[in-house]
Formats: sequence, C-alpha cells, structure tokens
Amino acid sequence: MRNIVIASIAGAIFLFLAAALGTSSPLPSDEAGLEQNFDELIAPNDLRDWMKVLAGEPNHVGSPHDKANAARILEWFKDWGWDAHIETFYILYPTPIKETLELVTPKAFKATLQEPPIPGDSSATAREPALPGYLVYQSDGDATAGLVYVNYGMKDDYDTLERLGVSVKGKIVIARYGGGWRGLKPKLAAEHGAIGCIIYSDPANDGYSIDNVYPEGPMRPYHGIQRGSVLDISLYPGDPLTPGVGATKDAKRLSIAEAKSLVRIPAIPISYGDAKVFLESLQGPVAPPTWRGTLPITYHVGPGPSVAHLAVKSDWGTKEIYDVIATMKGSTWPDQWVIRGNHHDGWVFGASDPLAGQVALLAEAKAIGALANRGWHPKRTIVYTSWDAEEAMLIGSTEWAETHAPELRQKALIYINSDTNARGYLQAGGSQDFQHMVNQVAADVTDPETQVSIAERRRAKLRVAALEPGATERVKAEAKVAADPAKDFLIEPLGSGSDFSAFLDHLGVPSLDLGFAGEGDFRGVYHSRYDTFEHHTRFVDPGFVYDALLAKTVGRLVLRASDSDFPLQRASDFANAMSDDLDLAKKLLKQSREEAETQAKMIHDRAFHIAADPTKSSAPPTPLAAVPQVNFKPLDDAVNRLKRSAHAYDDALAKHSSNLPGTQLARLNSIMLNIDRTLAPDAGLPDRPWYKNVIYAPGRFTGYDAKTMPAVTEAIEDSRWADVDRGVKITAQALNAYTAQLDQATALLNGTLTVSR
Amino acid sequence: MRNIVIASIAGAIFLFLAAALGTSSPLPSDEAGLEQNFDELIAPNDLRDWMKVLAGEPNHVGSPHDKANAARILEWFKDWGWDAHIETFYILYPTPIKETLELVTPKAFKATLQEPPIPGDSSATAREPALPGYLVYQSDGDATAGLVYVNYGMKDDYDTLERLGVSVKGKIVIARYGGGWRGLKPKLAAEHGAIGCIIYSDPANDGYSIDNVYPEGPMRPYHGIQRGSVLDISLYPGDPLTPGVGATKDAKRLSIAEAKSLVRIPAIPISYGDAKVFLESLQGPVAPPTWRGTLPITYHVGPGPSVAHLAVKSDWGTKEIYDVIATMKGSTWPDQWVIRGNHHDGWVFGASDPLAGQVALLAEAKAIGALANRGWHPKRTIVYTSWDAEEAMLIGSTEWAETHAPELRQKALIYINSDTNARGYLQAGGSQDFQHMVNQVAADVTDPETQVSIAERRRAKLRVAALEPGATERVKAEAKVAADPAKDFLIEPLGSGSDFSAFLDHLGVPSLDLGFAGEGDFRGVYHSRYDTFEHHTRFVDPGFVYDALLAKTVGRLVLRASDSDFPLQRASDFANAMSDDLDLAKKLLKQSREEAETQAKMIHDRAFHIAADPTKSSAPPTPLAAVPQVNFKPLDDAVNRLKRSAHAYDDALAKHSSNLPGTQLARLNSIMLNIDRTLAPDAGLPDRPWYKNVIYAPGRFTGYDAKTMPAVTEAIEDSRWADVDRGVKITAQALNAYTAQLDQATALLNGTLTVSR
Repeated sequence: MRNIVIASIAGAIFLFLAAALGTSSPLPSDEAGLEQNFDELIAPNDLRDWMKVLAGEPNHVGSPHDKANAARILEWFKDWGWDAHIETFYILYPTPIKETLELVTPKAFKATLQEPPIPGDSSATAREPALPGYLVYQSDGDATAGLVYVNYGMKDDYDTLERLGVSVKGKIVIARYGGGWRGLKPKLAAEHGAIGCIIYSDPANDGYSIDNVYPEGPMRPYHGIQRGSVLDISLYPGDPLTPGVGATKDAKRLSIAEAKSLVRIPAIPISYGDAKVFLESLQGPVAPPTWRGTLPITYHVGPGPSVAHLAVKSDWGTKEIYDVIATMKGSTWPDQWVIRGNHHDGWVFGASDPLAGQVALLAEAKAIGALANRGWHPKRTIVYTSWDAEEAMLIGSTEWAETHAPELRQKALIYINSDTNARGYLQAGGSQDFQHMVNQVAADVTDPETQVSIAERRRAKLRVAALEPGATERVKAEAKVAADPAKDFLIEPLGSGSDFSAFLDHLGVPSLDLGFAGEGDFRGVYHSRYDTFEHHTRFVDPGFVYDALLAKTVGRLVLRASDSDFPLQRASDFANAMSDDLDLAKKLLKQSREEAETQAKMIHDRAFHIAADPTKSSAPPTPLAAVPQVNFKPLDDAVNRLKRSAHAYDDALAKHSSNLPGTQLARLNSIMLNIDRTLAPDAGLPDRPWYKNVIYAPGRFTGYDAKTMPAVTEAIEDSRWADVDRGVKITAQALNAYTAQLDQATALLNGTLTVSR
Repeated sequence: MRNIVIASIAGAIFLFLAAALGTSSPLPSDEAGLEQNFDELIAPNDLRDWMKVLAGEPNHVGSPHDKANAARILEWFKDWGWDAHIETFYILYPTPIKETLELVTPKAFKATLQEPPIPGDSSATAREPALPGYLVYQSDGDATAGLVYVNYGMKDDYDTLERLGVSVKGKIVIARYGGGWRGLKPKLAAEHGAIGCIIYSDPANDGYSIDNVYPEGPMRPYHGIQRGSVLDISLYPGDPLTPGVGATKDAKRLSIAEAKSLVRIPAIPISYGDAKVFLESLQGPVAPPTWRGTLPITYHVGPGPSVAHLAVKSDWGTKEIYDVIATMKGSTWPDQWVIRGNHHDGWVFGASDPLAGQVALLAEAKAIGALANRGWHPKRTIVYTSWDAEEAMLIGSTEWAETHAPELRQKALIYINSDTNARGYLQAGGSQDFQHMVNQVAADVTDPETQVSIAERRRAKLRVAALEPGATERVKAEAKVAADPAKDFLIEPLGSGSDFSAFLDHLGVPSLDLGFAGEGDFRGVYHSRYDTFEHHTRFVDPGFVYDALLAKTVGRLVLRASDSDFPLQRASDFANAMSDDLDLAKKLLKQSREEAETQAKMIHDRAFHIAADPTKSSAPPTPLAAVPQVNFKPLDDAVNRLKRSAHAYDDALAKHSSNLPGTQLARLNSIMLNIDRTLAPDAGLPDRPWYKNVIYAPGRFTGYDAKTMPAVTEAIEDSRWADVDRGVKITAQALNAYTAQLDQATALLNGTLTVSR
C-alpha cells in the first residue's frame, strides 16, 4: 500500500507543478495540443465537489435549493471568466397538497406513498423536504372505481384488452412503468374512458429481478417511487400555458382549461411494495405472458373484485424557474453560436439525473474559461446553458428557445446536450449530418477502463450486443456497420426526453445528445428519493471517471465546433440515413398491408372465434382497414436527389474548401449554418404544429423515442391512409429545400457560383 | 332446474333404449356409419369411473396399485372380448431410501422435500404411500460443495457460464426445470465437472406466474415437486441393463457399472418453496436476463458463499413391470398389425399423465369390443397395449418392442400412441407419410366447444398463435399452411418422450402420437403428488369431454387403418417434409459459418475483451472452428428422386388402386407395410446405434424434441465437420432405399410390374 501512496503523492505534486507552470506557458496552437491542455484541466475531484453541493438537498422546481443552485452555478461561470446571467421564467407547476390511494374492496389497504430514509444516504441526512411521489400535470380529482391492470398501458396493450373482452371505461387503471413514455399511460387510459391512473415500478423492470436493491445494490428498493411529468409531450413540451412563446412575466397565457397538453384524469406513482397489494387482489383473466412482472403473485387483469380510491389535490400556482446562461464571444464569427446545455433541476437530489451531466458541463466551462484566460479565444460564440425545470417537461430550455427563437434561427450552429451519465459506453444521438464529427471526436478520446478509444469500445459493445438473445434487427444492423473500421459508427436519431427538443424539433437547430451508460446503473433510483450522491458514487460512476470523460468528449465537440474554419456537416451521412428511413417506411406499409389481409381472411374464416377458449372472456379484434397503394414517388425522387447532391457536396468540400477565397468561405459557412432549418418548415407536422421538424420528432405513441419522417410513418402506423400522401409531400418538400441549399454550397466550392463581398 | 333434470332423465332413457336396441340391430357397412356407432359407444362417465379407480392410489412402478391396475385393465379387456394377457419384465428401478438436501453456508436450512396433502384432494385421501420427490436413475452419493445456478442447465447455458467466467467443476449445480429435457441437466452438469445436481420448478415456468396455484387454480403450489427420470435417453431408452433386448427374466444383463445410460452424479428435484432459500443465498454475478425466474429475489449465479449438502441413497433392486397386451385378430390380413398404446403407470396418482390418455384408450377398446360383438371384424389385427414403466424411461413399451422385434419388423403397419390429454386443440405428430390420414380423421371429428371439426379448430388456433408476440418461424410457417384449406395441416415429426420411441426410432415402424392440449392445464401438477382425479376434473378436462374426444379421434385412426383395403400413406407429404428438412440443414450450416466468421473477426479485434465490464467476472468465448464446405449432393439427389417418385406413386394410387387384381394389391400392401423400415437401417445413428431411424430421432441436446436427419443436423450443430459428409451419405442411402420400394409399388399400380400369387 505504501508504494501506491508515494506514487500518488508524487503524481499530485507533478500535477500541481504542471498546473502552476501551465498558467504561464503558451498554449499550443494545434487542435491536439489544445485538447490535451483541455483534458488536463478536467479534475474528477471538482466534479465530486460540485455534485456533493448541488445534490445536497432536494432541488426540484420551486425548492430553495433549486434557486440556490442556479445562483451557485452563475457565480462559478462568472469566476471562470464567462459573461453569465440568469433568465427567469414563470410557469404553471402544480405541487401536491394531498394524495390518497386506497384499496377499498376486497380488503382495506392504504398505500404508504412513502420512500423511507436509508441510513448513510442523503435520503436520511437532507434537511429540506422532498416532494412526495407524484406525477406533475396529472389532473386533480377524487375517483373510486374498479381496478384494471393494463400492463404498460400502451396502445398495443389496449388492443390486447379488447381481445380479452375487458373495458377500462369508468375504471381506475394500474399500469407498470416501462414499454413507452410515462405520460402516455394516463393519456391513453383517459382516451379509453378510465377515470384514474396508478403507475408502479415492477421489480421485473428496475427492481430485484435486475440486481440487488439499494442500498445493497443499485436497483429500486421495495418502497422506491418513480416521479415524473405526464404532460402530453406529443403536442408540445414547455410551460403548458405558453406554447410557442417564452413564459416571461408578461407573456400571454392560456387558461388551464385551454391547455391541451394537460392530462384530464388523476394519476399517482407508487412503489412495488404498495402495488403488490392492489395487484394481488385482482381477479378476472390471467394477464397474458408478456404482461407478467416478477412480483410473487398471479397477475390478473380484472376487473373485479378490487375497488380503489384515488384522490389528488395540488397547488396550481405559478413557480419561478432559473436558467443560467453563460457566453463567451467568438473572435471571428460572433454571430455563429455553439450552444451547450444540461439541466440542473432534479426530482429529489438528482445525482445521476441530471447532475452527473451537469458537473461534466461545469468542468468543460471551467476548463474553457482557463484556456481563455491563457489566451485562447473561440472563433465562434460559445453559449453554456444550465436549464431549470427539465423534469417538469423540458421547460427551462423550451421557454428560453421560444423566447430567443428569431435569434437562434439565425445564429445557432449546433446545440449539444447531455443529461444523465454513468460508467459505460458512449451513447450518441442526433442530427446525422454531424455523425462524422462525433466519430472523429470519439476516436480521439480514450476509455479509462480499456485504454482503447471510446469509439472502438462502442463498436465492440455493439458487436457483442448483436450476439445476445433477443437482439433487434436495428442492433444487428448497427453492429454490422460498427464491425467495419472503414465506416463511421451510426448515431441514433433524436426524439425528445431532454433539453434538445426545442432546438431540434421546434427550431430546426441540429442537435447532439451524448452520455455514457451501460455499466453503472441508476435505473433503479431514477426519479426517486434515492438518486443520491451516495448512490452515484457507489454504483453509477465511482471516482467520477466517466462524468469527467463526458466533459472531455463534449468539450472536444464544443472546441472543434467553435474553432473550425470549415462547415462541420457531412451531407452523405444524412442522405444515407434518409434513404434507410424511407426504406423502413415502405417496409412498414408492406407489413401493414399483409397484417390487414391476414386479419381479414381470419375474420372471414371466424378463426378468432373458433380458436378462443369458450370458458374465458375474449373478443375478436377490431377489423383493420384495407391498406391502399401509396405514391412514394415524390419522396423517392427527393431522397435520390439528396443522395447525389450530398455526394457532390462532400467531394467538393474535401477537394476545394482549403483554397476557397474568404468571402466565398463566409458564404459557405453561412449556408451550412442554416441548412438544417429547411427541415423544420413553419407549418410543422400535421395536427401538432409546435413540432416543426418533419424529419426528426418524438413519436406520438413512443414519447421520447424518435420517429423519423413522422408525417409518413405515423400516418401508416395509425392507418390514416389519406394522410400518408400529404406526409410524403411535406417530407419531400423539406428534403428538396435542404438539397437546394446544399447544391448552392457545392456550386460555391466548385467555383461555379461566386458571391461579392 | 327442473326442466333440465327432466331432459336429462329423458336423454338417459333414450340412450338406454338405443343401447339396448343397438345390440340386436345390424351394423352399417360403410365407414361413416361404423364410426357413428363407435362414437355412440364412447361414454364420458366410463372414462370418469376408470380414472377414479386407476388414480385412486399412487401407481408408480413397484407400487401395489400399479400391479392391481394392470390386473384390472387385463380383466376389462377380457370382458370386452379381447384376447389379452400381461407380459412381465424385470428391470433395474432404484427407489429412494434416504434423501438429504441442506444449505450449510451462509445459513443452515434443511429442504423440506415434502408435498403436503391438500384437503379435498387425493393427496389427502389416499392410503398407500407415494414415493418422495426424486429422480429415478440419478446416482447415489453424498456431496458437499459450493452451489452454482445454471439456469436450465442446457448446452447454451454452459456457454453463457463460460462467458461469465464461472466454472461448475467440483460444485453442486441448481437448475430450473424447462428449456430442454430433464435428464440433460445432471448429464451436462456431470460433463462439466459438477458433483451434484438440484432441479427445481420456477414459478415463472409452471407456478404462480402462469395462473393461480392449486387448489385455487391449476398451477404448481409452493411445495409442488416434479419427479422424473434422468436416464440418458439420447443413448437408449428402456431398462438400462438390457439395451436392444427385452428385459425378460433370463435376459443377459449389463452390470450397473457398464450401463452407459445411467447418470453418474446424485440429483434431486425440489419445489420453489425450498429452492428460494438456496437461490437467495447465492452471490457472484447477477444471472443474465433470460436466466431470471419470478421468485422475489435477485438471481445470482454464484459461486459463493452458498455451500449445499446433497445425499441420496436408493434401493437398486430389480422391480417387476406389467404390460397389458390385448389382441383382436384380423380377418383378412392377420399378419398386418395396427398397434395402439398408452402407459398406465404414473408418478404418483397420474390422473392427467397418463390416465387421461389411458381411459381414452380403454374407451376405444370397449367400443371396438362392442362392435366386434355385433359382427364387425377388422381386416387387420388390432393390438391394444397398456404399458407400464413409461415414466422410468419408456421401459414397458421398449422392452416389449425389443422382445418382439423380429415379428414387429415384419408385421407392424403403424403404432398409434397417446399419453397426457387435456381440454383444447388437437396435437398430432408422427411419420409424415400418415399426415393425410390424420387430416382426414380430424376433418370428421367435431370439436364439442365450437361445433367445427377438430381440424378446423387446429387450423384456427395455429393462425391465431402466429399473430402472438414471440411466435416462432415454424409456427408462422405452419399457420400459413393451415390457412390454406386446399392443403393438409402439417404434423410434427416425433422425437422421444413417450412410448412410440422404440417403434419409430428403433424399429422403423411408422408412428403417430395424438392428444388434445392448450385449454386445460396440468403443467403445474406434472409429475407431482397433485396430478389427481380432483385436479383433472376441475382444471384439465371437466366432464371428460376431451378425453372422450381423444377416443373418438384415435379410434377412427385404428378403425380405418385396420379396415382399409389400400395403403394408407401419402408419399408426397413425406417427400415434401424431407425437402423442407434438407433446406433447414443447409440453412443451419450457413448460419454456423456466418457465426464462426463473425466470432473469429471479433476475437481478432479483441471485441469481447473491450466490451466487457472490467468490474465483472467474464471471459471470452471458446473459438468456433471454421466451417468447411459440405457436399450435400448425395442428399440433394436423393430428395429430388424421392419427390419425383412420391408424386408418381400418389398419382398411380389414386388412379389405379381400385382396379388392382388381388395378388397385386396384396403385394402392394406388403411393400407399403414395410417401406418405413428402410429409414431405420441396422447400423443406426453414428455413436448411438440403438437409434436406427436416420430420419426421425430425439436430439442429443433436445431430449424429447425431434431432430430430423439427425446424422446431418447434429454433426453441424456439434461442429463435427468430418461427420457431416458421413451423415449426408447414410441419410441419402436410407431415402434412396425408401424410393426404390416406392418405385416398385408404383410399377405394381401402373401394371409395369406383376407378381405371381
């Protein structure tokens, strides 16, 4: 042990000397040299100290610690040399006054709704109160009704209920977390006539079936509760009363009754400790195999004999939220902005979600400040943002983006987001024209556990994952690409679920979302009172190694984006992704047609009736509409044109960019700064115009997950056949507009188009 | 209520009069008329009465009730006009004297190993003792060692253990039931160096996760234990000391040490009530997702800290077993035998397994006896068999078949088996040249729940099953065929697991296995003390409706097989199946090649190492051997020839059979009587020559499930590349021999070959 201590002390002295000398030595002018200096400025102990302070008390919207954290972050930015301020917004944010959940029949049981403190954990040492387990933006109410178990409460679960001959009309549903976004559960329940919604965490999903429970292991303990927002994200995120505009003090507001993103039935989240009593009281059909969790009970669907009583009452007052905005002005192109963000509000202590990402962002900001202090200046303006009220539904980022929309549409080159973070493998999603840039950065960052690049580790993990039982076709396809070192690994398209949404979905600002995951595990404390500093340091990222690694990874993206002389996009990556997405849409249509034909024959042959067990409740499925022919030609043409143009652009950029005269280069950069805005025409998506991006959107029935070309794919999924042609048209138009811009850029590069100063 | 009683009395009077009149009225001479009379002779109350007696006390091998049941069945056959006798065999059959299972570390726990009586159930009312939960043919021993959880204990589970870096050498393994045949669990454990094996029933597989537990519902209660045989079925079934010959009193016997089918480590089956204590004591790696059951614990693999003590001591004495054989001599072709069988021994009371099938068989025998009494006589000889010691490992049927092998090879036209039975859908497997005959019968039997034919109901069920999540490619393919009314539904090839094995696998006698399943559910009491008359009548087949239906279905097969003037096979069904199986073998080879290539690249790139979590125990997989080219030409040629010949035969039979002169017809019937024997050449399968059928066999790593063309497919699966070519050759030879016989039959039909009397 002694040798290690000596080596450690010697290392500390060396680092101290290096740091002391560093402030006076000149910075290297090359990218690699700059980034090496940047890396040396990232100190895991800083991250630890910041998290300990920020996660010391509950920091939800409206809490004293949330406000204090914003003030702290502001001061840190200022200390590090940034031009920083707080922007305050005024939002509708209900907090619970009274919550009741009881089983009335067949026996009386009052749900505890409590997460008891765990000795040695912040849940036991904090002095300020946490909010109880609740679902923000559920609707207050008082319901007593029969109970029905609806599995994940997703669209296909209601199809299954129909086949079981079970209706939720006038009932209280109990759904388990998982299978899709939380907010869809009360929404779909209400749409099917339910009058209340209970959501619980099944041990199969994030409890004892996954690993030992906290504090012995990382997973959700018996009384752990997942809080969360149930605002209807598919319509618009942000303050429910100010869609499309910033929730400033004097903004024009909807009434609560007018706000379409509010769910209209009471809902409550509970632990599996509480849920077991409700579920084991149910009779009726046995739940289908895929519906069964791992409580030691037989899962029945109901209804009968169970009757539950659910009552929620909230304070619907306005709350203040605090976004911290820090700017470092660009020396060459101050009106081109590289924006970096992560939220600072948590559900209780918020250690892994969001503070793991927040402390990485702070480490970047401190290091960039230090580089600036030593004479380096970004060519473009860098904007660091620390958002509030993300947990409520991306409110801090959305209100800021809406408030500054015209300026952002002009100036935002890219938005780079992070949120949760854990020990593991690089996760990267975003606008696919930035895929090559992510690959370049990932190839230059070393994984601390294996000493290979984080790119190589991601590739290896994908290849191993593709061999595992149940690997999806998508994973297999990604693994195939990852196995070819000549190809870039793929990045996932983004939907929603974190602060990039307003930038990407509403403004058409290309966005990236990065983090590490897959080894450390915070699923079991997600949105609970146990997502604490102690849990994070024991199970998620001991030593803050991967939180620091996130800073090194995203920091490189920020440095390169702000310093690059040339456009960052590679157009053919985007074109290839569009081609793949179009193929997927066609495949989906073909499957839908086959399913409808198969079902029609089966209904004609009475197969559902004949196969049914007459001793069990059942009903035939609702007939699927016949699937008409769809004219994909406009989109086929658009994608083919895009592919050709993208290829020409990438070629021209590689050949001619370094010889381009300054005015031509400025014009080129200006085109490519705004090119992604073509994907987000002002009309937006049919029926939900806040979502303007017609290429990337969260699915109406997926919540967070992306749905590419949503106007096409969702019309197919919903059997809205008349809308498919319209979807094809608006998607093709957007791609054609993108291609037109790209052709201009290519002409500039090839010298066939010139601009005067 | 009164009306119903009157109607019921009126019905009874009508039936009484009809039965009374029936004995004197002449039988119709046509098939439909005969079968209608047969149906009317099947009385569910008979089945109920017989089951109540036969399942009244424990009836395992060696029990007084087993012997008494054989005597009863003998008397019934005689009463019904059959020429019946008992054949006795003398077999090695160990029964437990002492069993101990304890957890030693980290806490002391003595497994109960008990199934407590349930009030109102035979488990509470029987007077004779049941055997305790045990595994017959495990090896006695006394082991104290660390515990390792091995999931289902199948081949791929040991591959996963290797990847987890966990060895079972010198350990006691605990495996759950399911995933493959029971006997493979101790066998594979021993092959991997384990010194003891515990097998338990996880509630995920047949306990509370499936439905309510007995007596509230059908599923396995907390202390239910699955008994069973662990004899190495992949080598040979039957008495372990007399492979290939009948276990008559003076048969030449191996010593116990020489018997290769005996497992060499102690093993014991336990309930999930007991298993929970052992499993929750384990630490080490968390079990992979597909390994986790639904006990309310975190499943760890171990090893450590758990130490278990397992000791078993048995009485290895010889026991007598009693096969009941009943014969009705054929009027036209007495040397062509239609054999029908079902076993009569159970593990305890054996209501659903095997008595549900046994009482159906008895109903057929009684009805056929009554038809004979009224003047009907089969053209071929009918042999009804009631086997003993099936549960020990198909011993009664195997010893009888081995004893009478020369005669059976000459005379057996078909063996028709049943075993368990339940409310539900027709299940049919067997020699595919009899597929059309099964379809014809199934089209003529009416399902009592839906009033459509059992064929139509089976088709509807397959089509609905193909829509369910997780439907396999095989189910989807079967559903596609089933949806086409112009095509016969497919029957499954047979492997092992019931009394057809010696006939089909050893002698090459074409076999069928039939039953109903899918609505009534006896999985949860399978091989336990709770498989009782009460359980069967409450949950499996209330009213003995489907047990009677089995009698009507199989009875038709027996009547038609024994009365048909013409051969029963349709050769093209067999040829098509062979063509499909060859395609599957080629696909398997292609997959193996791709897997080996992918893995080799990944090992070269260190992908397994780089992707591994360094904080967790893991190891790279054993490298797969490169897959060489295989010459499928001999088999391609054989299958193509078979397809052409089969088509020609089926055509000729349809056209010319009714005009065939008597001597030609006799010769034709004689060829087709023996044609399937060509598939079972004397040399048998490489390395396990008891299995002579080179088309149908149980898989070496599947246990009961069929492996078609096993010499080819298993060599591929085991990467024994040198053996594939040999497998192709012997399989092609067998098919060519079949084709040669078929061509002779065709020539006879077409008049190009004539035979003299």
